Amino acid sequence: MTLSLRELFRPHSIALVGATDKSGWSLSTFQNLRDHRFAGKVYLVNPRTEVVHGETAYRSLSDIGQPVDLAYVMVPTPAVLSVLREGAGLGIRNYVVLTAGFGETGPEGKRLEDEIVAFATEHGLTVLGPNGNGYINAAGATTPYGLPIPAPLLSGPVGVVLQSGALASSVLSFAQARNVGLSLLTSMGNEAMVSVTDVMSYLVDDPDTSVIALFLESVRHPEEFARVCRRAARAGKPVVALKIGTSALASHTAQAHTGALVGDDRVIDAAFRRFGVVRVHSLEDLIITAGLLASVGRVGGRRLGVVTPSGGASEIIADRAEQEGLELPAFAPETVHRLKAIVPEFATVQNPMDVTGYVVVDRTLLGRALEVVAEDPGIDAVLLLNDLPRVQPADPSVTLQIAGATADRIRRAPVPVMVVSNVLADITEFGRYVQAQTGFPYVAGGIEHGMAAIGNAVRWSETVTAAGAEPEPVGAAVPVDVEPGELWAEHRAAAFLASHGVPVVPAEQVADEASAVAAAERFGYPVVLKAAAEGLGHKSDIGGVRLGLSGPADVRTAYREVTAALSARGLTGAALVQPQRQGGVELLVGVVRDAAWGLTMAIGLGGVWVEVLGDSALRLLPVTPADVREALAELRGHGLLTGARGTEPADLERLSEVVAGIGTLALSLGDRLAALEINPLLVRGAEVEALDALITWT
Amino acid sequence: MTLSLRELFRPHSIALVGATDKSGWSLSTFQNLRDHRFAGKVYLVNPRTEVVHGETAYRSLSDIGQPVDLAYVMVPTPAVLSVLREGAGLGIRNYVVLTAGFGETGPEGKRLEDEIVAFATEHGLTVLGPNGNGYINAAGATTPYGLPIPAPLLSGPVGVVLQSGALASSVLSFAQARNVGLSLLTSMGNEAMVSVTDVMSYLVDDPDTSVIALFLESVRHPEEFARVCRRAARAGKPVVALKIGTSALASHTAQAHTGALVGDDRVIDAAFRRFGVVRVHSLEDLIITAGLLASVGRVGGRRLGVVTPSGGASEIIADRAEQEGLELPAFAPETVHRLKAIVPEFATVQNPMDVTGYVVVDRTLLGRALEVVAEDPGIDAVLLLNDLPRVQPADPSVTLQIAGATADRIRRAPVPVMVVSNVLADITEFGRYVQAQTGFPYVAGGIEHGMAAIGNAVRWSETVTAAGAEPEPVGAAVPVDVEPGELWAEHRAAAFLASHGVPVVPAEQVADEASAVAAAERFGYPVVLKAAAEGLGHKSDIGGVRLGLSGPADVRTAYREVTAALSARGLTGAALVQPQRQGGVELLVGVVRDAAWGLTMAIGLGGVWVEVLGDSALRLLPVTPADVREALAELRGHGLLTGARGTEPADLERLSEVVAGIGTLALSLGDRLAALEINPLLVRGAEVEALDALITWT
Repeated sequence: MTLSLRELFRPHSIALVGATDKSGWSLSTFQNLRDHRFAGKVYLVNPRTEVVHGETAYRSLSDIGQPVDLAYVMVPTPAVLSVLREGAGLGIRNYVVLTAGFGETGPEGKRLEDEIVAFATEHGLTVLGPNGNGYINAAGATTPYGLPIPAPLLSGPVGVVLQSGALASSVLSFAQARNVGLSLLTSMGNEAMVSVTDVMSYLVDDPDTSVIALFLESVRHPEEFARVCRRAARAGKPVVALKIGTSALASHTAQAHTGALVGDDRVIDAAFRRFGVVRVHSLEDLIITAGLLASVGRVGGRRLGVVTPSGGASEIIADRAEQEGLELPAFAPETVHRLKAIVPEFATVQNPMDVTGYVVVDRTLLGRALEVVAEDPGIDAVLLLNDLPRVQPADPSVTLQIAGATADRIRRAPVPVMVVSNVLADITEFGRYVQAQTGFPYVAGGIEHGMAAIGNAVRWSETVTAAGAEPEPVGAAVPVDVEPGELWAEHRAAAFLASHGVPVVPAEQVADEASAVAAAERFGYPVVLKAAAEGLGHKSDIGGVRLGLSGPADVRTAYREVTAALSARGLTGAALVQPQRQGGVELLVGVVRDAAWGLTMAIGLGGVWVEVLGDSALRLLPVTPADVREALAELRGHGLLTGARGTEPADLERLSEVVAGIGTLALSLGDRLAALEINPLLVRGAEVEALDALITWT
Repeated sequence: MTLSLRELFRPHSIALVGATDKSGWSLSTFQNLRDHRFAGKVYLVNPRTEVVHGETAYRSLSDIGQPVDLAYVMVPTPAVLSVLREGAGLGIRNYVVLTAGFGETGPEGKRLEDEIVAFATEHGLTVLGPNGNGYINAAGATTPYGLPIPAPLLSGPVGVVLQSGALASSVLSFAQARNVGLSLLTSMGNEAMVSVTDVMSYLVDDPDTSVIALFLESVRHPEEFARVCRRAARAGKPVVALKIGTSALASHTAQAHTGALVGDDRVIDAAFRRFGVVRVHSLEDLIITAGLLASVGRVGGRRLGVVTPSGGASEIIADRAEQEGLELPAFAPETVHRLKAIVPEFATVQNPMDVTGYVVVDRTLLGRALEVVAEDPGIDAVLLLNDLPRVQPADPSVTLQIAGATADRIRRAPVPVMVVSNVLADITEFGRYVQAQTGFPYVAGGIEHGMAAIGNAVRWSETVTAAGAEPEPVGAAVPVDVEPGELWAEHRAAAFLASHGVPVVPAEQVADEASAVAAAERFGYPVVLKAAAEGLGHKSDIGGVRLGLSGPADVRTAYREVTAALSARGLTGAALVQPQRQGGVELLVGVVRDAAWGLTMAIGLGGVWVEVLGDSALRLLPVTPADVREALAELRGHGLLTGARGTEPADLERLSEVVAGIGTLALSLGDRLAALEINPLLVRGAEVEALDALITWT
């Protein structure tokens, strides 16, 4: 359930409870509301002082005698609950609690926090915080926020949600430096009641917001997060997230290799990919990418036309484009022809198009080249390298005219034009003025971060439709009868998988030498003989796997040795005989239950690839065959599946169907499944067969 | 040979030849000299106008009648040579040629350029350019430079050399935004005469310069570059380079696998590593890293103590530290004890140390925590997260006092303190004022780039001493008698290597079945039999390698088939018998001659590792065993050498000695060696043996 936060973020009157001249937070909040032009009433409440911040103060909320929509609470920790009590009695439904000393300090604080939540829930109150600085509703000129807000506060389409108080100041400064306007910025505090996902949900519905930017230390409510991300995707609102640190991941089954592959952070990557969240790794990229997405929205593809006034910058762009997986296709002949008529004779007409330093002489050169490149039939978008002016010239009219002409060309262009500056230096006051006067679009700050932003925008555009889709309903649950914590080793796991449609190498369980030989002869030599016992994990550790048995004598010896090894370990069991497969490529397909995100599949190349390289790709379940194809293509050793070193190319379509089917089966096992691992899954052309498997149950 | 550029960069009088009101370049150059306070005389020369830029112009250089140290030449392309002629006659020895239309336009321009160089060389003139904007000697207030210079021009310790005209403006803006002062910035143009390495050499000797920052499209004179980098390393002056694009690499022997591993860009990496050049990948990192190195110089190690006012920022720093290979060790008990006495009770004392948002209340908190952390015995340097103020407060005295107290603490700290801001937003005029007034040190711009800069500084500190060492003299040349382009396949190459100290698997060349069997019996079964013929490259492609021969019959069959395969291809030859080795790890060790950088060694794990993953490390020769150890540690599959998956751990000391010895041998072969490849080099514990080899000669 998500809370409705409309009243919280759009109050008509605010009481600052615990306001005092002695507190910087109090003064900042008061000044912010005044300086950023809150249109409603502000009441200062202090039981012991008549004048606070130069205004007459009220002794209590009750003394105000007027409707209050929001109480901003700065009283000492033990007094917070009584403020809520008084407010609830007066019908005040929304609270921002700046006061610290709650859950963040330990069990006693947590108890106080729980009391507040319980009271608020019971009385239908909404509480943001505690231990948070409040919010800045720039679009609504409502800024109950406890730290100084650098002027000017720019209003715009980016909604920001931060699980950090201190970083809000950096985000505000940097957004201003990039001329990125904010709709709402919220400093979450302890999220005792209002959570990140609640605010995200508000922003998805907020007409002032077109992009959501997040700073996350942890995702506290994965299911709600998934739901709100899907809603954002359907609304066409990108979610950009800087997610740091790593959160503890619960119980991975030690018996399965897969556990080691599923690092917390990689699961976050897999989850963000599934839900269409653009993950960035710096505050700079958070704001620059959010700004670009707010400006261009969806981009049609990866093919960029590049227009610059510099050869050096063109080469940096080409290097970065390759890293971002962007293409710089050759221009169509018509484009080349038209460009040649524009640029100086000594310029080389190519993509990236360096119109040369002759822009110093002819300042229209860049804009005219842009117009031509934007009409090239083979590109999806244009990158225009163009710095905004930093310092106001004596006569700004020429500057404004050039910028206006370029802005017009960008508006008329048949594909999105993304403007990038050379380096990440601030957009100055004059730069902002030029943008405001001419409608000059967003300028991504610097080639380095600008290319990251373009890459992010392109990738988001490719995945957003899929990310918005509701998850496929899981098929009918497959009934299994298991003990808690049970482990099914090969013979049992394999039989189970085979009975549910997974192709498994044939095998016979045998209980004496003679039947081992009989089975071997039915399969034809060479065969494999393996130990089979309840509760046995990695068989090879006890010498329980014998390969390449080429005749009856080999089989008898192997049977005796393997069963002896079992007995020596106090295990009762028998052996399994299988035909030995030759050649092919071995994969590992594992499914584990992530405590936060649910069933997660790891796909890797088997053996040394996984064990030494950790070469694997992760996906949240369910996966489609197309998802599997994409995951396989991420593997460093992908070439082994496509015929490198003379191997037979794998039938990737068949392989992807089998792997996706394993995922579907895992899902249909419901909560009982802890982990499922097929290692190896052998692929030879179109033949795909599980050679060994392990299932653990919760 | 490098040119002496003292006169070029420190003239007492400058003539602007071809000065005209019609040219923006002319006006900018004139204004730059005036506005940035050139103390010498400036003469404007124009044959057809009496007044230029409001000053009386001279008709020619000869008309000036006063000594001229530098002529800044802006005349049309065909007239440049005559200016030089006239100047040479007048004793003017230094020229900056802004005029374009030379080598960059094609063969005709190249001819004109060659004429100029020939004339200048003959008459002892020094020419910077053509097709370059000139230079900015900020330390010497001498700015013959053809584009506007953003004010203020900050003088300082970073020397900048750019193979790009347009990017100079970005570098200037960005350096100003970072409050990084420049000593000299040079826009190289075509480098017809004065090259990047000449300017670098000047900067190594320049007392105003302590760090050299480069933007490179190509390294034109690799040997000079190597030499000047070694001089810079010995002088303790870091060289930081943004090298873009890729340069064509000549003749890799198609017969050797190694060729494919040696991408141009990877050779640049290897060369930069050898010469101690810090490679960066963005203009931002170029300036931010150069600024940090100019400020802190050498850092004692990788162990960072981190002091911040923000939990969120601390976690971003921890994530980035891991990526940069920096350590954040736990604080010593004494440090913890002292910190607990300083920070609020609810703060968690750990590294990174978040002193909490309580800094708003107690602004000395950060500085006092810094003092304690800097004295921790287990750290090599401190990272202090501290933004400079952006806007001047009504009363700046408190701000100045706090900054001054922090600056004092930084000066007194027993280890280097590196200050990093939260985000990469400009240092404002007030920020610069605070730094100037208080001696507050350099602030690296933003956590993202600041951590890159710290990583760069630490890595540079680790390698600079070795980078400054003169190359070891190559031992006595090994005489070889070869035909040009000759290729030595296994038997010949192996025998040659064995005779020069490389351990090689024993082998006997046999010319009939009987001697093949006899050889096999001497080695003991199983054996390997291989085709041996002059000019035969990859034997396995023609079925010329037979493994696991376990008896005389196998050997006979193999001999017949292999020699038949040779005959079928018109090759005459015989076979080679070797003992078959079991187990171990296969490496590839290849040496190729890079056209620019000379003999380069690739070390990789053999087989699929190299062929599918390209898992290899490159080093310029010579290499020490320690270099080889480091290179091996870079391999993704390094675990295979240290016992992963139950393999026998390799004796890395022995292996490194053998590989370094291969490098030494390759060097001693001199110019005749084109490529040398050992594939595989088998390692089993302390046993290291070349199983196959290929040598190609130039």
